[in-house]
Amino acid sequence: MVSEVKSLNEECGVFGIWGDAQAAELTYFGLHALQHRGQEGAGIVANAQGHLTGEKGLGLLTEVFDHPDKLAHLTGTAAIGHVRYATAGSAGIENIQPLLFNFNQQQVALAHNGNLTNAVSLRAELEAEGAIFHANSDTEVLMHLIQRQTAATFEQRLKASLRQIKGGFAYLVLTNDALYAALDPNGFRPLALGQLATGAYVVASETCALDTVNARFIRDVQPGELIKIDDHGYQVKSYTTDTQLSVCSMEFIYFARPDSTIYGVNVHQARERMGQLLAKEQPVDADIVVGVPNSSLSAANGYAAASGIPYEMGLIKNQYSQRTFIQPTQRLREQGVRMKLSAVAAVVKGKKVALVDDSLVRGTTSNYIVRLLKEAGATAVHLLIASPPLRYPCFYGIDIENTRELMAANLTLPQMQAKIGADSLGFLSVDGLIAAINLKSSAPYSGLCVAYFNGDYPTPLYDYAATFELPQVTA
Amino acid sequence: MVSEVKSLNEECGVFGIWGDAQAAELTYFGLHALQHRGQEGAGIVANAQGHLTGEKGLGLLTEVFDHPDKLAHLTGTAAIGHVRYATAGSAGIENIQPLLFNFNQQQVALAHNGNLTNAVSLRAELEAEGAIFHANSDTEVLMHLIQRQTAATFEQRLKASLRQIKGGFAYLVLTNDALYAALDPNGFRPLALGQLATGAYVVASETCALDTVNARFIRDVQPGELIKIDDHGYQVKSYTTDTQLSVCSMEFIYFARPDSTIYGVNVHQARERMGQLLAKEQPVDADIVVGVPNSSLSAANGYAAASGIPYEMGLIKNQYSQRTFIQPTQRLREQGVRMKLSAVAAVVKGKKVALVDDSLVRGTTSNYIVRLLKEAGATAVHLLIASPPLRYPCFYGIDIENTRELMAANLTLPQMQAKIGADSLGFLSVDGLIAAINLKSSAPYSGLCVAYFNGDYPTPLYDYAATFELPQVTA
Amino acid sequence: MVSEVKSLNEECGVFGIWGDAQAAELTYFGLHALQHRGQEGAGIVANAQGHLTGEKGLGLLTEVFDHPDKLAHLTGTAAIGHVRYATAGSAGIENIQPLLFNFNQQQVALAHNGNLTNAVSLRAELEAEGAIFHANSDTEVLMHLIQRQTAATFEQRLKASLRQIKGGFAYLVLTNDALYAALDPNGFRPLALGQLATGAYVVASETCALDTVNARFIRDVQPGELIKIDDHGYQVKSYTTDTQLSVCSMEFIYFARPDSTIYGVNVHQARERMGQLLAKEQPVDADIVVGVPNSSLSAANGYAAASGIPYEMGLIKNQYSQRTFIQPTQRLREQGVRMKLSAVAAVVKGKKVALVDDSLVRGTTSNYIVRLLKEAGATAVHLLIASPPLRYPCFYGIDIENTRELMAANLTLPQMQAKIGADSLGFLSVDGLIAAINLKSSAPYSGLCVAYFNGDYPTPLYDYAATFELPQVTA
Amino acid sequence: MVSEVKSLNEECGVFGIWGDAQAAELTYFGLHALQHRGQEGAGIVANAQGHLTGEKGLGLLTEVFDHPDKLAHLTGTAAIGHVRYATAGSAGIENIQPLLFNFNQQQVALAHNGNLTNAVSLRAELEAEGAIFHANSDTEVLMHLIQRQTAATFEQRLKASLRQIKGGFAYLVLTNDALYAALDPNGFRPLALGQLATGAYVVASETCALDTVNARFIRDVQPGELIKIDDHGYQVKSYTTDTQLSVCSMEFIYFARPDSTIYGVNVHQARERMGQLLAKEQPVDADIVVGVPNSSLSAANGYAAASGIPYEMGLIKNQYSQRTFIQPTQRLREQGVRMKLSAVAAVVKGKKVALVDDSLVRGTTSNYIVRLLKEAGATAVHLLIASPPLRYPCFYGIDIENTRELMAANLTLPQMQAKIGADSLGFLSVDGLIAAINLKSSAPYSGLCVAYFNGDYPTPLYDYAATFELPQVTA
Repeated sequence: MVSEVKSLNEECGVFGIWGDAQAAELTYFGLHALQHRGQEGAGIVANAQGHLTGEKGLGLLTEVFDHPDKLAHLTGTAAIGHVRYATAGSAGIENIQPLLFNFNQQQVALAHNGNLTNAVSLRAELEAEGAIFHANSDTEVLMHLIQRQTAATFEQRLKASLRQIKGGFAYLVLTNDALYAALDPNGFRPLALGQLATGAYVVASETCALDTVNARFIRDVQPGELIKIDDHGYQVKSYTTDTQLSVCSMEFIYFARPDSTIYGVNVHQARERMGQLLAKEQPVDADIVVGVPNSSLSAANGYAAASGIPYEMGLIKNQYSQRTFIQPTQRLREQGVRMKLSAVAAVVKGKKVALVDDSLVRGTTSNYIVRLLKEAGATAVHLLIASPPLRYPCFYGIDIENTRELMAANLTLPQMQAKIGADSLGFLSVDGLIAAINLKSSAPYSGLCVAYFNGDYPTPLYDYAATFELPQVTA
Repeated sequence: MVSEVKSLNEECGVFGIWGDAQAAELTYFGLHALQHRGQEGAGIVANAQGHLTGEKGLGLLTEVFDHPDKLAHLTGTAAIGHVRYATAGSAGIENIQPLLFNFNQQQVALAHNGNLTNAVSLRAELEAEGAIFHANSDTEVLMHLIQRQTAATFEQRLKASLRQIKGGFAYLVLTNDALYAALDPNGFRPLALGQLATGAYVVASETCALDTVNARFIRDVQPGELIKIDDHGYQVKSYTTDTQLSVCSMEFIYFARPDSTIYGVNVHQARERMGQLLAKEQPVDADIVVGVPNSSLSAANGYAAASGIPYEMGLIKNQYSQRTFIQPTQRLREQGVRMKLSAVAAVVKGKKVALVDDSLVRGTTSNYIVRLLKEAGATAVHLLIASPPLRYPCFYGIDIENTRELMAANLTLPQMQAKIGADSLGFLSVDGLIAAINLKSSAPYSGLCVAYFNGDYPTPLYDYAATFELPQVTA
Repeated sequence: MVSEVKSLNEECGVFGIWGDAQAAELTYFGLHALQHRGQEGAGIVANAQGHLTGEKGLGLLTEVFDHPDKLAHLTGTAAIGHVRYATAGSAGIENIQPLLFNFNQQQVALAHNGNLTNAVSLRAELEAEGAIFHANSDTEVLMHLIQRQTAATFEQRLKASLRQIKGGFAYLVLTNDALYAALDPNGFRPLALGQLATGAYVVASETCALDTVNARFIRDVQPGELIKIDDHGYQVKSYTTDTQLSVCSMEFIYFARPDSTIYGVNVHQARERMGQLLAKEQPVDADIVVGVPNSSLSAANGYAAASGIPYEMGLIKNQYSQRTFIQPTQRLREQGVRMKLSAVAAVVKGKKVALVDDSLVRGTTSNYIVRLLKEAGATAVHLLIASPPLRYPCFYGIDIENTRELMAANLTLPQMQAKIGADSLGFLSVDGLIAAINLKSSAPYSGLCVAYFNGDYPTPLYDYAATFELPQVTA
Repeated sequence: MVSEVKSLNEECGVFGIWGDAQAAELTYFGLHALQHRGQEGAGIVANAQGHLTGEKGLGLLTEVFDHPDKLAHLTGTAAIGHVRYATAGSAGIENIQPLLFNFNQQQVALAHNGNLTNAVSLRAELEAEGAIFHANSDTEVLMHLIQRQTAATFEQRLKASLRQIKGGFAYLVLTNDALYAALDPNGFRPLALGQLATGAYVVASETCALDTVNARFIRDVQPGELIKIDDHGYQVKSYTTDTQLSVCSMEFIYFARPDSTIYGVNVHQARERMGQLLAKEQPVDADIVVGVPNSSLSAANGYAAASGIPYEMGLIKNQYSQRTFIQPTQRLREQGVRMKLSAVAAVVKGKKVALVDDSLVRGTTSNYIVRLLKEAGATAVHLLIASPPLRYPCFYGIDIENTRELMAANLTLPQMQAKIGADSLGFLSVDGLIAAINLKSSAPYSGLCVAYFNGDYPTPLYDYAATFELPQVTA
């Protein structure tokens, strides 16, 4: 999760609760468990006796809620919250979610994780009809669609609108009298339902947030479902039956927290299995296995177990490596990177190292880590990536929108190895990845989206089709 | 390093540099690597052509230096810096170091890691003679002593003053024309000298800070030494020959960063050996070994290796568990703790767990972790502490000033086990600890201070002697 | 302008400029001169080569632009700005103006001074058609109206929209290629056009803002006019010919700055004449004339000159009486008020005082000032109000929306005098007010709105008609 | 009080209280009334049952106490406070007063208004004896002197120390059991004693602060007095009998608030008399009298009354002219000044103006105001200064430390007139000034210090004697 270095970013986490007197406070704790999904903004909207009030801001959750008053005024028994990763050009406060809309008859708050593939064209159509947009996010598109529906009930209008949008999305919608959770027809993004001992229901992007608030897991929200929660309990509805599971494999590889479980598969264990299969596919002659902390430790453990090569803590991550306002000058740039990771010379000196990383994006971090280990005395560094080469953009909610920045989309394996400076370089195969995750599904690729690896997108690309570029290197 | 929970706190880290055009910026990076030694305040004083200027504030380094201007105005080729842990009642900005004194003829800046055992009596004597103190820290005592000396040179006055103070201390003193580094006669606190490729010299509490600025390690500062660095290079001097090494064993057990090396011993490897010897002294019937992240992972690895029981990631630490302004209410207190640590149910379910922690202070965290693992399905939890029972206060720079808060000073082993709720409880012996660290020294306890475990203090207690209380339980 | 005490608040000031390389900086200075028209928020949107960018925030202008960077990034040669008084419930950042709208084809920024009387019904109609509002202000209504027009040019759509809104308004509209200034058909709010030596055109709520940026006054914007300014100069257009001048008389009495000139009448001199006519209508037996600083000094001067009674500085206003976060407790409440005004005992002791105030709202401040003067030794205090009794609400842009808070709407003259504790109480007549202002117009009331005094509103009340309440006392 | 422009600055205001349960809150209100005496820093130390606690910071009082908590924690029944004007190089937080010293046996807080003339030599002596200074202010010198005394009681040590310091000073000293107020032997700075209805005693730099907290004036503190206030009431003591009254005449001319009374003379009335005598000494041919707001309005009124020329509000001061972070560029500099003052063209057009200002320092503001009036249409501007030409520095507490910046010390009257651009220029004579203030005292100059006008300093200059420079022009 050295996300600053990798520039692989998730686009958000959501949390919602209905029926607890400490709804906003629990949402705060739930969002805290989802902070790894977005660090650029956070917000909570609470429902107090049918009236919605919100608080939001830029930065980490603890920075937004930097005074107890900011949470204390969010009274009420229901709430939704959001942590956000901001893409360039959308960093303004108006884009921080949940978005809260005040209508004459009603209030509606929306929180969204994912990316719509037809947002640009929908927006253009809506503007042509006189709609005014205030934010850049896709979230507002859904509100305009709902508002233009003519069906009698909010639920009907919401369903009709969900059928109009395309792409990856997990939406939470809080109204004056209910909380809705909707998932796209492919289930690209994870979304789980749980229940507290108090009887309150919670919905969250990952099960780790359920655990944090001590909620019992009930079920994963399924593709095409709309779950409605109100004072009568929860009801599972569908807004479409044209569904096919293709959950984002990068959630298992890198994004989700190791203690989360998605569609029955624990993330940590999936990563261990990726490491184990990697050991079989890519055996190396090494003295020790070292993982890149923290996201690759599970895979490294798996590699060590399967290969019989001892696992060692050869790299240390500084726990205080948060954002710094001080930019190192050219000469000090390397020291800047040294702030985040350091090698334990006593461990790696004179050793042949099997270095396990979860994924390879631009290659710059890998190059640095290989050099760090060699300067600390490693006699060889074999770089082993516990996922396939990333070559295609993602349009469903991960911030890889073009292939120019992807090392594996532009260089062959030997070129990559040379540029990184490793003594060898190996990747897990797509089949290995699918086997490691081992999702119980009859859908293609066992229910996973692996489009970033092989370009086989599970849906049309809509607005993105025109500008889509093939990678330079495809295998 | 779950310091908020453990309430075992180091009292500071220091960094100094002489001879580099980017002195303050390098000090910033050096202090960043020492942030784990103190999070309540930070400061830097730089020397620009003989004139000293400083910047300091409350909070983390990145909070104090929250704008590039704050560092940019600290021009010059020499600097010292400090990160501080603030004890109760001393949290004011006036106590943040370095302290900068402006005299008619000279400026002096001081940064201090450690605790003096005769500060109270020295201060009373000085006040009786008319001295006025502005801060509560021991640091100011040294300045008053220097100022009252009559010897001709600053170095002579400094040496004479160092002979007057007792206890544990690593001092950095920056004047208009030199940088001094002084260590107490027992070497309680670590202090290392290094050199940059530019020729500049650096001194730091831990070698990890040397690595961060890419400095080559030269030597550990030895007990009783005063090192003077100026434009002619560095000179090693002694202010006393009455020395005996007794470096703080808690630096190896808990405080220092795993990639640091103290008196030739790498901290991570020392911890691994503690885990290995613990496995021999305290074997248990377990299916998996789980370490408390992050500080106990080395010891847990060692335990696993020596016992043959597989190491598993059964506990996850939230990387965003920084300070929160939102205090959970009574009911939500446990959720509050859940923000920091979570169990991976998929890993621990149905397993007998050997839980390895580096040390045991109050026992409250251990109790919580045991419960967390059992709720996640562990069938047994054996708590194994990779250090001896903490029973005596420290007067040399660690924040354990009375025994009332120490679980092992008040309860027998069976009482502790019952209170924690573990299925068994075992500690590493003092001999095992000494063997694991394996410092090459002929001094008692092989050159370590183990007084917190056995009450055998290597120096008189001076001001603390009167109020010193024996623990209720001593073995 | 002791507005905190009086609770008589203007709703905003606007400033716009086209054609100067320092457009945003000049807007900053112009807004500074208009700060008395609104202190709760401020913002500037600048046009740099057709692209609009903005900056806004809560508080005084100097608080919003608290760092040079905030202004520096607003490059470009055109800008509009706004200072805002926030009514209860609309204090959020989303209501701070100018509002900036980003459409696919175009950007539009709006700044508004005034109050629409049909905003609620327009908004309800628009929402019923699917419009989504983000702010509470009337400003957004105009944007939605424009957006739903189908005419070919922006100017045509703007004109058609201006014909749909009712009430008092002075709008500045900045697009990618022009700056528009529009005034309501009654000219309730002042708006003046000027030109800089550089050739740039400026539009501002008051001429004092033109003076501050050293602009030459060209003309007052007239009721029903739409002025378009672009690179070809300025053009005066009309969106309606159904106009009748009724400029707000409170601008002359209290709101506008004394150095401003509205429709040819200098505000300071109008106030002096109010004082002179008041002296004729309400002569008293007094030794000295004292004005309530600062807004009543002109009227007090006039009263002194016409009555022959000497003017004396018997009351001093603390120049540092800005907002304080420290709320005085019950016992100290009076001290709290004493922070703002003090009596000069040496001046008033033993004197019969003719106390001149510009207007009377709730009467609480007057009661306090009378007591202050008596405690300082005044033997009599005659309260003379240089305007008629305020009895009716304003719907065109001043924050008097109900009559319950107006003393003169609820008590007879003797009751008021008794409650205030004055030895006598006199008001200027409506005829006297009109004569004092002496606007050159053949419209009713010589072109003034005096509805707050006599209930004779120059327009239908639209949305307010239903809830309008007559005062208890009408003469 | 356009102090930013004039660069004539008072050095501080003090307020103390003993015996009221809301001591700190009343001190806050008292300091608010003294804010004109210093705007760069503020602080309060309160005594709660013998324990002193403080709060201080940079900026205006309302900026330092920007949250109720900051005042709320200052419980107790006694307090002292300070508002500070910071000279260059002493702007750090460590110089903000009151200074609070924590000794083993006692706490002492000091607040100081004035300037010592032997502080530098005392400080050098003290440092030579080993004293360590933390701040640059003279205040700390007194504490060191007290601390080195050997007399039995604190009062004796304080008296002996007061006898060692020279110059102008009004000190408030708060200890664990008493509040002391001390005035220098010349009474350069004002200091008044009063009593609240609750029986509590208050001491303040000006009587306006007594009025603000509703305290009854008891007496001015006299030169050489030490007043001790404790639970037994107040006692007037003397630390020296070698006294001679020479109160700062600039307090009457410019610094003090018009509603304050010093040694029986109301400041506003003294200024009116300065204006009256100026009219006799310097008659001009003018149509109207205009005063520079706000500090010259009293004198302008006096001039108008005595000359028979009508007083008019020809200049308006922007009430929001506080500090701005936006620095106007070269071209906009004049606009920057226009933010503070504006001319009322309708008043001055075609008129010969008698412009009255209280004093003349550098002449740059006067030059600007004359130009402003002429641009507004004045046909002539006669500048009349209601005090004599400032030619000599002050060493007793006003920030005029050298003569190079004083226009009248470097140019002859005709040169000044030409540079300012006025049609004539006249000053009040020193005799006229003395007559106008009319202090009842047999001391030289009727008990006033007029050294800035004639160089006749009432005391030796001590440390300043060596560098003292005579003005270029002396008459």
